[in-house]
Amino acid sequence: MLDFWQDYPEIRGKLIAVQTLMAERLSVNNADIRDALQKFTTRGGKMVRPALFFLFSGLLKEGNQDEERLLKIAASLELLHSATLIHDDIIDDSPLRRGLPSVEAQFGKDVAVYTGDFIYTVYFELLCETMADTPFLPRNAKSMKKILQGELTQMQSAFNADNSIRHYLKAISGKTAELLSLACLEGAYFSGGDKQMQRSARKIGLAIGLAFQIYDDVLNFTVGLEEADKPILTDFRQGIYTLPLLLAKEKAPEQVLPYLVASDGLSREECIQFSQLVADLGGITGSLFLAKHLTNQALLEIEKLPQSRNREILKEVTQTLLQRNY
Amino acid sequence: MLDFWQDYPEIRGKLIAVQTLMAERLSVNNADIRDALQKFTTRGGKMVRPALFFLFSGLLKEGNQDEERLLKIAASLELLHSATLIHDDIIDDSPLRRGLPSVEAQFGKDVAVYTGDFIYTVYFELLCETMADTPFLPRNAKSMKKILQGELTQMQSAFNADNSIRHYLKAISGKTAELLSLACLEGAYFSGGDKQMQRSARKIGLAIGLAFQIYDDVLNFTVGLEEADKPILTDFRQGIYTLPLLLAKEKAPEQVLPYLVASDGLSREECIQFSQLVADLGGITGSLFLAKHLTNQALLEIEKLPQSRNREILKEVTQTLLQRNY
Repeated sequence: MLDFWQDYPEIRGKLIAVQTLMAERLSVNNADIRDALQKFTTRGGKMVRPALFFLFSGLLKEGNQDEERLLKIAASLELLHSATLIHDDIIDDSPLRRGLPSVEAQFGKDVAVYTGDFIYTVYFELLCETMADTPFLPRNAKSMKKILQGELTQMQSAFNADNSIRHYLKAISGKTAELLSLACLEGAYFSGGDKQMQRSARKIGLAIGLAFQIYDDVLNFTVGLEEADKPILTDFRQGIYTLPLLLAKEKAPEQVLPYLVASDGLSREECIQFSQLVADLGGITGSLFLAKHLTNQALLEIEKLPQSRNREILKEVTQTLLQRNY
Repeated sequence: MLDFWQDYPEIRGKLIAVQTLMAERLSVNNADIRDALQKFTTRGGKMVRPALFFLFSGLLKEGNQDEERLLKIAASLELLHSATLIHDDIIDDSPLRRGLPSVEAQFGKDVAVYTGDFIYTVYFELLCETMADTPFLPRNAKSMKKILQGELTQMQSAFNADNSIRHYLKAISGKTAELLSLACLEGAYFSGGDKQMQRSARKIGLAIGLAFQIYDDVLNFTVGLEEADKPILTDFRQGIYTLPLLLAKEKAPEQVLPYLVASDGLSREECIQFSQLVADLGGITGSLFLAKHLTNQALLEIEKLPQSRNREILKEVTQTLLQRNY
């Protein structure tokens, strides 16, 4: 997935160094856990969090920094993300993660619980090594708590037909946007940016995070409908009611609510009908509109950053990440 | 379970304050998790870790310290312990914990995973608030890793007939003794004790921890044998091979190994036979001998501490904790 960065070799190179560092730090005696960790980290995702961190940390002082320290901080962001993903997959009983079997599916919940916990310890260790003289130890504790509270909000509101858009935004602010926002903020700080730039960085991360999650939630309503062997509406059937559905429900509750009452027992046919209904009621276009608005907010804020190669990359990446085709 | 401390009202009072602090910090939106947290922390255990911390932190400067800070550190120790217990119960599928249904049994694994994770975040937060200017941030990260590696060692060696005594001691050093040792060390440090006293504190915690776990493991071979409705040899049947068994195996492998091969499928009758065999081969007396030796080591080391009321309490508590009847 690092192919995503192929046009930006300077970032891609750093991300590979982060992978190497993670592999070194995640060494453990237990063979199952070692396998699980290795598979999980090397198959990798796009590593958006460390990438954003590097893009911001290189804004002002490129080439004049403690590279080792920056690598560790970038790794801490990816590790916190990884640990939460692995534990989420236990909750969701997800068969797949990043196109391969999830840690829970492949190794069982025992390994998944401890693998996640072990990653938390390495995350904590890296923070202690790099952040003791910065405001980011308590800030990380706060973010970790917010991320988890986002997950809890989502879990608590599963199958709750009264779920509101406000509630949804709160949940995704925690579970997705918080860590992207922290990545940008930490980057701006280590770049030597002033309060103003740090504020911008936080806003950019938050907007990208929210937009990213909304696009993801739209995909859950649009992908796989034509392929009979693909699972569809996986979130909805687990009672996770996301923006497209919530917008449709606002428009015509009497049409949407009957589907919610039965959401975990719908046939494939009914699921397809339901996603059609959500689209007809404007749930998809409305969600895309909000995502687009957030993307533009991010781009406007990026424009305020100091003119630099990194700023241009940030712009391009924001557009690529957030303007996928539907 | 705070009755354990009824003869020591000064310690009991502090432990109640720790419970109050934990309850405040563990407030969370999700109703299930809130219930789980509240039940788990108020039913409480003996709170040995915070108690040891207070006994050591009061050794030299009783009455002349930042009480709020000490409370938070004591709470951090109990929280780290709680989080690992809750996640362990997922692994073991334990129906009971502290005589009541485990978090996993009562609320399901989803709640148990997040409850444990949430406790880790509060633990981390308390450390950031209290330890930034001490050596104990990295030290806690290291301990957390060791505890987890102890659990992993145990998990990896489940049902392994080649399991050695060395292996066993390594696993219990991590999973039990490490945190007791940290509690004593942190206490000595905040009491203003010198390197010598800090070393003693670590040794005392380690010896108490090892002895405590060995006694616990002996109990698993001796308790409930006469009551037909009690589960027996629960560890053994989960493939956790502890000291009594390992000593018996050294003595007469040909008699012990056949039971190990079939350990998860033994009838109640065979389990009783097997515990009798372990006892006959000296597994129980040998284990008690080692535990007694470790207790004496702890008592000798306690004798070196400055003469004080706390030292006397430490002595008495070590004897009460570790000299139970069998």
